[in-house]
Amino acid sequence: MKVSGKHYRSVWMEDSTVYMIDQNQLPFSFSIYHSDSHTNTCKAIVNMTTRGAGAIGAVAGFAMAQACLTYELYFENDFSKYQTLILAARQEIEATRPTARNLFYATELVYLAGLVNPTSAFRKAQELAEQNLTDAIKIGEFGSKLLKDGARILTHCNAGWLAFVDYGSALAPIYTANGEGKKLFVYADETRPRMQGARLTAWELYNEDIPHTIVADNSAAYLMAKGMIDIVITGADRIAANGDTANKIGTYEKAILAKEFGIPFYIAAPLSTFDMSISDGSKIEIEERNSSEIFKVQGLDEKGDMQTVLITSPGSSAYNPAFDVTPSRYIAGIITEKGVIEATESEIRKIFN
Amino acid sequence: MKVSGKHYRSVWMEDSTVYMIDQNQLPFSFSIYHSDSHTNTCKAIVNMTTRGAGAIGAVAGFAMAQACLTYELYFENDFSKYQTLILAARQEIEATRPTARNLFYATELVYLAGLVNPTSAFRKAQELAEQNLTDAIKIGEFGSKLLKDGARILTHCNAGWLAFVDYGSALAPIYTANGEGKKLFVYADETRPRMQGARLTAWELYNEDIPHTIVADNSAAYLMAKGMIDIVITGADRIAANGDTANKIGTYEKAILAKEFGIPFYIAAPLSTFDMSISDGSKIEIEERNSSEIFKVQGLDEKGDMQTVLITSPGSSAYNPAFDVTPSRYIAGIITEKGVIEATESEIRKIFN
Repeated sequence: MKVSGKHYRSVWMEDSTVYMIDQNQLPFSFSIYHSDSHTNTCKAIVNMTTRGAGAIGAVAGFAMAQACLTYELYFENDFSKYQTLILAARQEIEATRPTARNLFYATELVYLAGLVNPTSAFRKAQELAEQNLTDAIKIGEFGSKLLKDGARILTHCNAGWLAFVDYGSALAPIYTANGEGKKLFVYADETRPRMQGARLTAWELYNEDIPHTIVADNSAAYLMAKGMIDIVITGADRIAANGDTANKIGTYEKAILAKEFGIPFYIAAPLSTFDMSISDGSKIEIEERNSSEIFKVQGLDEKGDMQTVLITSPGSSAYNPAFDVTPSRYIAGIITEKGVIEATESEIRKIFN
Repeated sequence: MKVSGKHYRSVWMEDSTVYMIDQNQLPFSFSIYHSDSHTNTCKAIVNMTTRGAGAIGAVAGFAMAQACLTYELYFENDFSKYQTLILAARQEIEATRPTARNLFYATELVYLAGLVNPTSAFRKAQELAEQNLTDAIKIGEFGSKLLKDGARILTHCNAGWLAFVDYGSALAPIYTANGEGKKLFVYADETRPRMQGARLTAWELYNEDIPHTIVADNSAAYLMAKGMIDIVITGADRIAANGDTANKIGTYEKAILAKEFGIPFYIAAPLSTFDMSISDGSKIEIEERNSSEIFKVQGLDEKGDMQTVLITSPGSSAYNPAFDVTPSRYIAGIITEKGVIEATESEIRKIFN
């Protein structure tokens, strides 16, 4: 999508370098982080320079390819050493963040390609990134049909183009519908603790000139009770075979509220987010992140300098689970690149066959 | 309650000066704001130097008494002028914040006393403040019976001693049960946008040595689904005759979630928070506060200096309703100074008769 009129992807790879829009600097400054090693790319995933299920998947594939290229010198003359090194790299990449399925999907496929040869790994990583983009465009097309002219949409966290290679999952239908000339209004949950809604979703919508406003995460029931929300759409980090969906902490709340108010709640995600090896959401590992994410926030001071400030009572601890799992019964449908499907095991298995 | 071992009330009046713990400085520094005029006291309510339904009520009564004392010189020789001036002051005080019932309850009673004479106004304001304290203690006693040894409590915003003259409403049962030797654990919703949970509730619990942790507002469904919450208790800003309850934005969400998970959701409030003139919650005016409360947050920088930083995308607006109204059907009971009652019109009318 566009940044000040110029087209960007959120992540890409050229030769052995991985490029990522530095999402920790947004919305206050726009910069590209360059990583020349899979280890640095891992650090960028851990510290959330790049984040969002789709972008993490693409970057994990790139990191895997970087490792294969780094150890290329052993491929011909010591394959066993090559294999040991790229397997260790795969484990390093897979240890960065536990919840997003796309990461494991990408590392597995690029690792297997890397066993053929390092160039295949690079090609596979690029192919997965292209697939990520075309999936997002299809999600936009299918999802747009759910958005009537005048629709008022609540979204949580950021599942926009920054969270994918481009275009996004939850925001893709909004971009498509907007392109089709529908008038929309988006309520962006600010999404504490990391504020991805207030910082990233709002920034994306502003750059695409789509009417929107930021709301505190606390205001969903108020907005729904007043009849101000027609539909809720969020992304997903991992979807179990029965449709239970892990996504940013707070998603489960919005889904329950939507059901209570009779508002449809949709998940938007490509098939690469589904984990058909787990039967239900209880088996999804939930990442607990550092409590400093609740204690401290980064922002611009009055002079325009970035400052990190302590915003909570210093004597107290904080508990910071980063995701929750919405049971499938709260989900009206899942918007995938193959169409909008019911969040049921039979419908999900059908689309995988 | 205690601050570094010394006993304080959150607000009090001596002669014609009103004293308030400056809640905008908490938890980072502890200071007492002195106001010598009802106009300055009004400003302190507007800018939330003091906040919380009970404290606002007490301070509004003090402000009304200040006005009566200020215009005392006209009481004997130009009563009509005196009456005009104190009525204007009453309107000024009542324009500070629209939602908390306690404010209007106090201004009316102190104004009527002020018509008898300025000294009566002062005595009435002091009497209301004492009543506020004794109500809170009774709420603590009745509410404590709802807390089993080992109870894990979720609370939203701050309805502790800072929000009253002392002791609090939602936190009063916790203080009483803790004093009785029950082991408790409190999850304090941070309560965006103003962070009263993370700053004030956490600070109170820390000072009283009650085990607790801060959580993002988004985590309630996660905690409830994991079986980590036994009971939810919040305060109230205004309760309609049918039990519908206005409280800090986000309360309605927690009430719906509690019902979904079969967890009892209680409101704690004195009878002075009830507005028997309104039949249901749809008639409660909801204050919309400045969007800067969402855009900016104040905290301590790395040098220990207070800084206000911008934390949201600069091109976007924010919508900031400060309260929501929880329908009475979600409320398991209301903890009052007369006992725990059902949130139904018949039970509420019974307690007022």
